[in-house]
Amino acid sequence: MTRSRLTPEREAELYNAVLDLLREVGYDALTMDAVAARTRSSKATLYRQWGSKPELVAMSLRHSKPVDISQIDTGSLRGDFHEMVAQSDDCQMERDTALVRGLSRAVHENDDLLQALRELFIEPEITGLDTMLQRAIARGEIAADNPALKYLSHMLVGAFVAHPLINDEPMTQDFLRDYLDAVMLPALGLPAPGV
Amino acid sequence: MTRSRLTPEREAELYNAVLDLLREVGYDALTMDAVAARTRSSKATLYRQWGSKPELVAMSLRHSKPVDISQIDTGSLRGDFHEMVAQSDDCQMERDTALVRGLSRAVHENDDLLQALRELFIEPEITGLDTMLQRAIARGEIAADNPALKYLSHMLVGAFVAHPLINDEPMTQDFLRDYLDAVMLPALGLPAPGV
Repeated sequence: MTRSRLTPEREAELYNAVLDLLREVGYDALTMDAVAARTRSSKATLYRQWGSKPELVAMSLRHSKPVDISQIDTGSLRGDFHEMVAQSDDCQMERDTALVRGLSRAVHENDDLLQALRELFIEPEITGLDTMLQRAIARGEIAADNPALKYLSHMLVGAFVAHPLINDEPMTQDFLRDYLDAVMLPALGLPAPGV
Repeated sequence: MTRSRLTPEREAELYNAVLDLLREVGYDALTMDAVAARTRSSKATLYRQWGSKPELVAMSLRHSKPVDISQIDTGSLRGDFHEMVAQSDDCQMERDTALVRGLSRAVHENDDLLQALRELFIEPEITGLDTMLQRAIARGEIAADNPALKYLSHMLVGAFVAHPLINDEPMTQDFLRDYLDAVMLPALGLPAPGV
Protein backbone atom coordinates (compact mmCIF):
# COMPACT_ATOMS: atom_id res chain seq x y z
CA MET A 1 0.00 0.00 0.00
CA THR A 2 1.29 3.42 -0.95
CA ARG A 3 -0.21 6.41 0.76
CA SER A 4 2.19 9.03 -0.58
CA ARG A 5 -0.15 10.26 -3.30
CA LEU A 6 -2.57 11.88 -0.86
CA THR A 7 -1.86 14.88 1.29
CA PRO A 8 -2.39 14.38 5.05
CA GLU A 9 -5.38 16.75 4.85
CA ARG A 10 -6.97 14.72 2.09
CA GLU A 11 -6.29 11.51 3.98
CA ALA A 12 -7.93 12.94 7.12
CA GLU A 13 -10.93 14.01 5.06
CA LEU A 14 -11.30 10.48 3.70
CA TYR A 15 -11.00 8.86 7.13
CA ASN A 16 -13.60 11.19 8.61
CA ALA A 17 -15.97 10.45 5.76
CA VAL A 18 -15.57 6.71 6.37
CA LEU A 19 -16.38 7.13 10.07
CA ASP A 20 -19.40 9.30 9.26
CA LEU A 21 -20.66 6.64 6.87
CA LEU A 22 -20.03 3.90 9.43
CA ARG A 23 -22.15 5.77 11.97
CA GLU A 24 -24.86 6.45 9.41
CA VAL A 25 -25.25 3.09 7.72
CA GLY A 26 -23.10 0.55 9.58
CA TYR A 27 -20.29 -1.67 8.32
CA ASP A 28 -22.32 -3.99 6.11
CA ALA A 29 -23.96 -1.20 4.16
CA LEU A 30 -20.73 0.78 3.86
CA THR A 31 -19.48 0.20 0.32
CA MET A 32 -16.39 1.45 -1.44
CA ASP A 33 -18.83 3.02 -3.92
CA ALA A 34 -20.43 5.02 -1.11
CA VAL A 35 -17.02 6.14 0.19
CA ALA A 36 -15.94 7.13 -3.32
CA ALA A 37 -19.13 9.12 -3.87
CA ARG A 38 -19.00 10.84 -0.50
CA THR A 39 -15.37 11.84 -0.88
CA ARG A 40 -15.46 12.56 -4.62
CA SER A 41 -12.64 10.09 -5.22
CA SER A 42 -12.39 7.06 -7.45
CA LYS A 43 -12.77 3.51 -6.21
CA ALA A 44 -9.45 2.78 -7.92
CA THR A 45 -7.77 5.33 -5.64
CA LEU A 46 -9.37 3.84 -2.55
CA TYR A 47 -8.30 0.31 -3.43
CA ARG A 48 -4.80 1.46 -4.40
CA GLN A 49 -4.32 3.34 -1.13
CA TRP A 50 -5.96 0.94 1.34
CA GLY A 51 -6.27 -2.38 -0.41
CA SER A 52 -9.69 -3.29 0.95
CA LYS A 53 -12.71 -2.09 2.90
CA PRO A 54 -11.61 -3.73 6.20
CA GLU A 55 -8.22 -2.00 5.96
CA LEU A 56 -9.79 1.35 5.11
CA VAL A 57 -12.13 1.05 8.12
CA ALA A 58 -9.31 0.02 10.47
CA MET A 59 -7.10 2.91 9.33
CA SER A 60 -10.01 5.35 9.73
CA LEU A 61 -10.52 4.19 13.29
CA ARG A 62 -6.83 4.51 14.05
CA HIS A 63 -6.83 8.01 12.66
CA SER A 64 -9.78 8.94 14.91
CA LYS A 65 -7.64 8.45 18.01
CA PRO A 66 -6.84 11.97 19.19
CA VAL A 67 -3.26 11.18 20.17
CA ASP A 68 -0.48 8.66 19.74
CA ILE A 69 -0.23 7.13 23.22
CA SER A 70 3.53 6.64 22.89
CA GLN A 71 3.95 10.43 22.64
CA ILE A 72 2.44 11.02 26.10
CA ASP A 73 5.33 11.58 28.51
CA THR A 74 4.42 13.43 31.71
CA GLY A 75 7.17 11.95 33.88
CA SER A 76 5.02 9.48 35.85
CA LEU A 77 2.87 6.52 34.83
CA ARG A 78 -0.13 7.89 36.68
CA GLY A 79 0.33 11.21 34.91
CA ASP A 80 0.59 9.44 31.55
CA PHE A 81 -2.55 7.35 32.22
CA HIS A 82 -4.54 10.41 33.25
CA GLU A 83 -3.27 12.41 30.28
CA MET A 84 -4.42 9.55 28.03
CA VAL A 85 -7.93 9.90 29.50
CA ALA A 86 -7.85 13.69 29.26
CA GLN A 87 -7.35 13.45 25.49
CA SER A 88 -10.89 12.12 24.93
CA ASP A 89 -13.83 14.08 26.25
CA ASP A 90 -17.05 12.34 27.35
CA CYS A 91 -18.91 13.28 24.21
CA GLN A 92 -16.25 11.75 22.01
CA MET A 93 -16.12 8.59 24.14
CA GLU A 94 -19.88 8.14 23.81
CA ARG A 95 -19.63 8.55 20.04
CA ASP A 96 -16.73 6.10 19.89
CA THR A 97 -18.59 3.59 22.04
CA ALA A 98 -21.49 3.55 19.59
CA LEU A 99 -19.07 3.12 16.71
CA VAL A 100 -17.12 0.30 18.33
CA ARG A 101 -20.35 -1.41 19.36
CA GLY A 102 -21.53 -1.44 15.77
CA LEU A 103 -18.16 -2.73 14.59
CA SER A 104 -18.04 -5.46 17.22
CA ARG A 105 -21.17 -6.87 15.64
CA ALA A 106 -19.61 -6.73 12.18
CA VAL A 107 -16.46 -8.44 13.47
CA HIS A 108 -18.47 -11.56 14.27
CA GLU A 109 -19.40 -11.92 10.63
CA ASN A 110 -16.28 -10.62 8.90
CA ASP A 111 -13.08 -12.32 9.85
CA ASP A 112 -11.11 -10.07 7.49
CA LEU A 113 -12.35 -7.06 9.48
CA LEU A 114 -11.13 -8.64 12.72
CA GLN A 115 -7.72 -9.28 11.14
CA ALA A 116 -7.47 -5.72 9.83
CA LEU A 117 -8.54 -4.22 13.17
CA ARG A 118 -6.04 -6.37 15.02
CA GLU A 119 -3.15 -5.48 12.73
CA LEU A 120 -3.88 -1.80 12.01
CA PHE A 121 -5.69 -0.63 15.15
CA ILE A 122 -5.30 -2.92 18.19
CA GLU A 123 -1.60 -3.79 17.79
CA PRO A 124 -0.42 -0.18 17.26
CA GLU A 125 -2.40 0.83 20.37
CA ILE A 126 -0.78 -1.95 22.40
CA THR A 127 2.65 -0.94 21.07
CA GLY A 128 1.97 2.67 22.10
CA LEU A 129 0.93 1.56 25.59
CA ASP A 130 4.05 -0.58 25.77
CA THR A 131 6.29 2.41 24.95
CA MET A 132 4.66 4.29 27.84
CA LEU A 133 5.24 1.32 30.16
CA GLN A 134 8.87 0.93 29.09
CA ARG A 135 9.51 4.52 30.14
CA ALA A 136 7.96 3.77 33.56
CA ILE A 137 10.27 0.76 33.87
CA ALA A 138 13.28 2.89 32.88
CA ARG A 139 12.31 5.45 35.55
CA GLY A 140 12.18 2.64 38.13
CA GLU A 141 8.46 3.08 38.78
CA ILE A 142 7.60 -0.53 37.96
CA ALA A 143 9.62 -3.72 37.76
CA ALA A 144 10.38 -5.03 34.27
CA ASP A 145 9.06 -8.46 35.26
CA ASN A 146 5.82 -7.24 36.82
CA PRO A 147 3.30 -9.92 35.78
CA ALA A 148 0.50 -7.36 35.30
CA LEU A 149 2.37 -5.61 32.46
CA LYS A 150 1.05 -7.93 29.77
CA TYR A 151 -2.56 -7.54 30.90
CA LEU A 152 -3.01 -3.77 30.93
CA SER A 153 -4.91 -3.71 27.64
CA HIS A 154 -7.14 -6.54 28.89
CA MET A 155 -8.05 -4.43 31.92
CA LEU A 156 -8.73 -1.39 29.73
CA VAL A 157 -10.91 -3.40 27.38
CA GLY A 158 -12.78 -4.68 30.45
CA ALA A 159 -13.59 -1.14 31.55
CA PHE A 160 -14.94 -0.20 28.12
CA VAL A 161 -17.00 -3.36 27.63
CA ALA A 162 -18.21 -4.03 31.16
CA HIS A 163 -19.14 -0.50 32.22
CA PRO A 164 -22.09 -0.07 29.82
CA LEU A 165 -23.08 -3.71 30.38
CA ILE A 166 -22.94 -3.81 34.18
CA ASN A 167 -23.56 -0.20 35.10
CA ASP A 168 -25.83 0.68 32.18
CA GLU A 169 -23.99 3.97 31.74
CA PRO A 170 -21.83 5.43 28.98
CA MET A 171 -18.09 5.60 29.54
CA THR A 172 -16.88 8.86 31.07
CA GLN A 173 -13.53 10.39 31.93
CA ASP A 174 -14.46 10.23 35.64
CA PHE A 175 -15.13 6.51 35.46
CA LEU A 176 -11.88 5.82 33.60
CA ARG A 177 -9.81 7.90 36.02
CA ASP A 178 -11.29 6.05 38.99
CA TYR A 179 -10.70 2.69 37.29
CA LEU A 180 -7.08 3.58 36.52
CA ASP A 181 -6.44 4.60 40.13
CA ALA A 182 -8.43 1.75 41.69
CA VAL A 183 -7.20 -1.23 39.71
CA MET A 184 -4.63 -0.56 37.01
CA LEU A 185 -2.03 1.29 39.07
CA PRO A 186 -2.40 -1.02 42.13
CA ALA A 187 -2.14 -4.10 39.86
CA LEU A 188 1.25 -2.71 38.77
CA GLY A 189 2.28 -2.26 42.38
CA LEU A 190 1.79 1.50 42.36
CA PRO A 191 -0.40 2.70 45.22
CA ALA A 192 -3.57 4.57 44.35
CA PRO A 193 -3.34 8.27 45.30
CA GLY A 194 -4.23 8.98 48.91
CA VAL A 195 -3.54 5.40 50.02
CA MET B 1 -43.29 -16.14 37.23
CA THR B 2 -43.99 -19.46 38.95
CA ARG B 3 -41.57 -22.26 38.40
CA SER B 4 -43.01 -24.68 40.92
CA ARG B 5 -44.89 -26.78 38.38
CA LEU B 6 -41.75 -28.27 36.86
CA THR B 7 -39.40 -30.69 38.56
CA PRO B 8 -35.75 -29.56 38.72
CA GLU B 9 -34.87 -32.36 36.28
CA ARG B 10 -37.46 -31.18 33.78
CA GLU B 11 -36.31 -27.60 34.18
CA ALA B 12 -32.68 -28.63 33.54
CA GLU B 13 -33.76 -30.53 30.45
CA LEU B 14 -35.54 -27.45 29.12
CA TYR B 15 -32.59 -25.16 29.81
CA ASN B 16 -30.18 -27.53 28.07
CA ALA B 17 -32.48 -27.73 25.05
CA VAL B 18 -32.57 -23.93 24.85
CA LEU B 19 -28.77 -23.72 24.91
CA ASP B 20 -28.50 -26.46 22.27
CA LEU B 21 -30.91 -24.55 20.04
CA LEU B 22 -29.03 -21.30 20.65
CA ARG B 23 -25.80 -22.92 19.50
CA GLU B 24 -27.50 -24.49 16.50
CA VAL B 25 -29.57 -21.61 15.13
CA GLY B 26 -28.68 -18.48 17.11
CA TYR B 27 -30.88 -16.13 19.10
CA ASP B 28 -32.89 -14.62 16.27
CA ALA B 29 -33.96 -17.96 14.80
CA LEU B 30 -34.67 -19.45 18.23
CA THR B 31 -38.45 -19.39 18.61
CA MET B 32 -40.68 -20.45 21.47
CA ASP B 33 -42.26 -22.85 18.93
CA ALA B 34 -38.87 -24.48 18.35
CA VAL B 35 -38.23 -24.80 22.09
CA ALA B 36 -41.70 -26.27 22.61
CA ALA B 37 -41.18 -28.79 19.81
CA ARG B 38 -37.68 -29.79 20.94
CA THR B 39 -38.77 -30.28 24.54
CA ARG B 40 -42.24 -31.70 23.84
CA SER B 41 -43.85 -29.01 25.95
CA SER B 42 -46.54 -26.47 25.16
CA LYS B 43 -45.80 -22.85 24.37
CA ALA B 44 -48.34 -21.94 27.08
CA THR B 45 -46.13 -23.72 29.64
CA LEU B 46 -43.01 -21.91 28.44
CA TYR B 47 -44.66 -18.50 28.61
CA ARG B 48 -46.24 -19.26 32.00
CA GLN B 49 -42.94 -20.38 33.48
CA TRP B 50 -40.56 -17.85 31.93
CA GLY B 51 -42.67 -14.99 30.64
CA SER B 52 -40.71 -14.39 27.45
CA LYS B 53 -37.93 -15.62 25.20
CA PRO B 54 -35.28 -13.25 26.61
CA GLU B 55 -36.04 -14.43 30.15
CA LEU B 56 -35.96 -18.09 29.11
CA VAL B 57 -32.59 -17.57 27.42
CA ALA B 58 -31.14 -15.68 30.40
CA MET B 59 -32.30 -18.36 32.87
CA SER B 60 -30.87 -21.08 30.62
CA LEU B 61 -27.49 -19.36 30.63
CA ARG B 62 -27.59 -18.94 34.39
CA HIS B 63 -28.39 -22.63 34.77
CA SER B 64 -25.40 -23.52 32.59
CA LYS B 65 -23.00 -22.11 35.18
CA PRO B 66 -21.53 -25.18 36.86
CA VAL B 67 -21.54 -23.69 40.34
CA ASP B 68 -23.01 -20.90 42.43
CA ILE B 69 -19.96 -18.70 43.09
CA SER B 70 -21.25 -17.70 46.52
CA GLN B 71 -20.99 -21.35 47.64
CA ILE B 72 -17.22 -21.48 47.00
CA ASP B 73 -15.52 -21.11 50.36
CA THR B 74 -11.95 -22.43 50.52
CA GLY B 75 -10.75 -20.14 53.31
CA SER B 76 -8.73 -17.71 51.18
CA LEU B 77 -9.65 -15.38 48.34
CA ARG B 78 -6.94 -16.79 46.10
CA GLY B 79 -8.24 -20.30 46.83
CA ASP B 80 -11.80 -19.18 46.04
CA PHE B 81 -10.74 -17.52 42.75
CA HIS B 82 -8.81 -20.57 41.64
CA GLU B 83 -11.64 -22.91 42.63
CA MET B 84 -13.97 -20.74 40.52
CA VAL B 85 -11.69 -21.34 37.52
CA ALA B 86 -11.34 -25.05 38.29
CA GLN B 87 -15.11 -25.48 37.94
CA SER B 88 -15.04 -24.85 34.17
CA ASP B 89 -12.78 -26.93 31.99
CA ASP B 90 -11.24 -25.52 28.80
CA CYS B 91 -13.66 -27.34 26.55
CA GLN B 92 -16.64 -25.88 28.36
CA MET B 93 -15.11 -22.39 28.31
CA GLU B 94 -14.62 -22.60 24.55
CA ARG B 95 -18.24 -23.68 24.10
CA ASP B 96 -19.44 -20.89 26.38
CA THR B 97 -17.32 -18.32 24.56
CA ALA B 98 -18.99 -19.19 21.27
CA LEU B 99 -22.39 -18.97 22.92
CA VAL B 100 -21.73 -15.63 24.58
CA ARG B 101 -20.24 -14.26 21.37
CA GLY B 102 -23.43 -15.11 19.49
CA LEU B 103 -25.54 -13.57 22.24
CA SER B 104 -23.46 -10.41 22.38
CA ARG B 105 -24.46 -9.81 18.78
CA ALA B 106 -28.14 -10.40 19.59
CA VAL B 107 -27.89 -8.00 22.54
CA HIS B 108 -27.14 -5.12 20.17
CA GLU B 109 -30.47 -5.61 18.47
CA ASN B 110 -32.66 -6.75 21.36
CA ASP B 111 -32.77 -4.42 24.30
CA ASP B 112 -35.16 -6.76 26.14
CA LEU B 113 -32.49 -9.48 25.95
CA LEU B 114 -29.91 -7.12 27.47
CA GLN B 115 -32.33 -6.28 30.29
CA ALA B 116 -33.09 -9.96 30.96
CA LEU B 117 -29.40 -10.92 30.90
CA ARG B 118 -28.53 -8.10 33.25
CA GLU B 119 -31.29 -8.97 35.73
CA LEU B 120 -31.23 -12.77 35.59
CA PHE B 121 -27.61 -13.56 34.72
CA ILE B 122 -25.15 -10.71 35.28
CA GLU B 123 -26.53 -9.38 38.58
CA PRO B 124 -26.76 -12.80 40.28
CA GLU B 125 -23.15 -13.47 39.22
CA ILE B 126 -22.02 -10.15 40.65
CA THR B 127 -23.94 -10.86 43.85
CA GLY B 128 -22.23 -14.26 44.12
CA LEU B 129 -18.82 -12.65 43.63
CA ASP B 130 -19.72 -10.06 46.24
CA THR B 131 -20.56 -12.78 48.78
CA MET B 132 -17.12 -14.28 48.18
CA LEU B 133 -15.48 -10.87 48.64
CA GLN B 134 -17.44 -10.13 51.83
CA ARG B 135 -16.01 -13.32 53.35
CA ALA B 136 -12.50 -12.16 52.43
CA ILE B 137 -13.20 -8.83 54.13
CA ALA B 138 -14.55 -10.61 57.22
CA ARG B 139 -11.38 -12.72 57.34
CA GLY B 140 -9.30 -9.53 57.19
CA GLU B 141 -7.71 -10.39 53.84
CA ILE B 142 -8.85 -7.20 52.15
CA ALA B 143 -10.02 -3.82 53.42
CA ALA B 144 -13.76 -3.11 53.19
CA ASP B 145 -13.05 0.18 51.44
CA ASN B 146 -10.58 -1.18 48.89
CA PRO B 147 -11.38 0.82 45.74
CA ALA B 148 -10.78 -2.20 43.46
CA LEU B 149 -13.69 -4.15 45.01
CA LYS B 150 -16.31 -2.62 42.75
CA TYR B 151 -14.33 -3.33 39.58
CA LEU B 152 -13.59 -7.05 39.89
CA SER B 153 -16.29 -8.04 37.42
CA HIS B 154 -14.99 -5.42 34.98
CA MET B 155 -11.56 -7.01 35.15
CA LEU B 156 -13.03 -10.48 34.64
CA VAL B 157 -15.08 -9.33 31.65
CA GLY B 158 -11.90 -7.78 30.25
CA ALA B 159 -10.11 -11.12 30.37
CA PHE B 160 -12.91 -12.90 28.55
CA VAL B 161 -13.40 -10.24 25.88
CA ALA B 162 -9.83 -9.11 25.30
CA HIS B 163 -8.04 -12.46 25.30
CA PRO B 164 -9.60 -13.79 22.08
CA LEU B 165 -9.40 -10.31 20.54
CA ILE B 166 -5.81 -9.47 21.43
CA ASN B 167 -4.20 -12.88 21.71
CA ASP B 168 -6.34 -14.64 19.11
CA GLU B 169 -6.68 -17.64 21.41
CA PRO B 170 -9.60 -19.26 23.19
CA MET B 171 -9.93 -18.74 26.94
CA THR B 172 -8.22 -21.42 29.04
CA GLN B 173 -7.97 -22.21 32.73
CA ASP B 174 -4.22 -21.49 32.58
CA PHE B 175 -4.81 -18.01 31.17
CA LEU B 176 -7.47 -17.20 33.77
CA ARG B 177 -5.30 -18.44 36.65
CA ASP B 178 -2.40 -16.29 35.50
CA TYR B 179 -4.69 -13.27 35.06
CA LEU B 180 -6.14 -13.72 38.56
CA ASP B 181 -2.67 -13.91 40.10
CA ALA B 182 -1.14 -11.17 37.96
CA VAL B 183 -3.80 -8.46 38.16
CA MET B 184 -6.90 -9.24 40.20
CA LEU B 185 -5.23 -10.24 43.49
CA PRO B 186 -2.58 -7.46 43.29
CA ALA B 187 -5.28 -4.88 42.50
CA LEU B 188 -6.91 -5.90 45.78
CA GLY B 189 -3.62 -5.47 47.60
CA LEU B 190 -2.96 -9.22 47.86
CA PRO B 191 0.49 -10.15 46.58
CA ALA B 192 0.70 -12.61 43.72
CA PRO B 193 2.12 -15.96 44.86
CA GLY B 194 5.90 -16.12 44.90
CA VAL B 195 6.26 -12.31 45.11
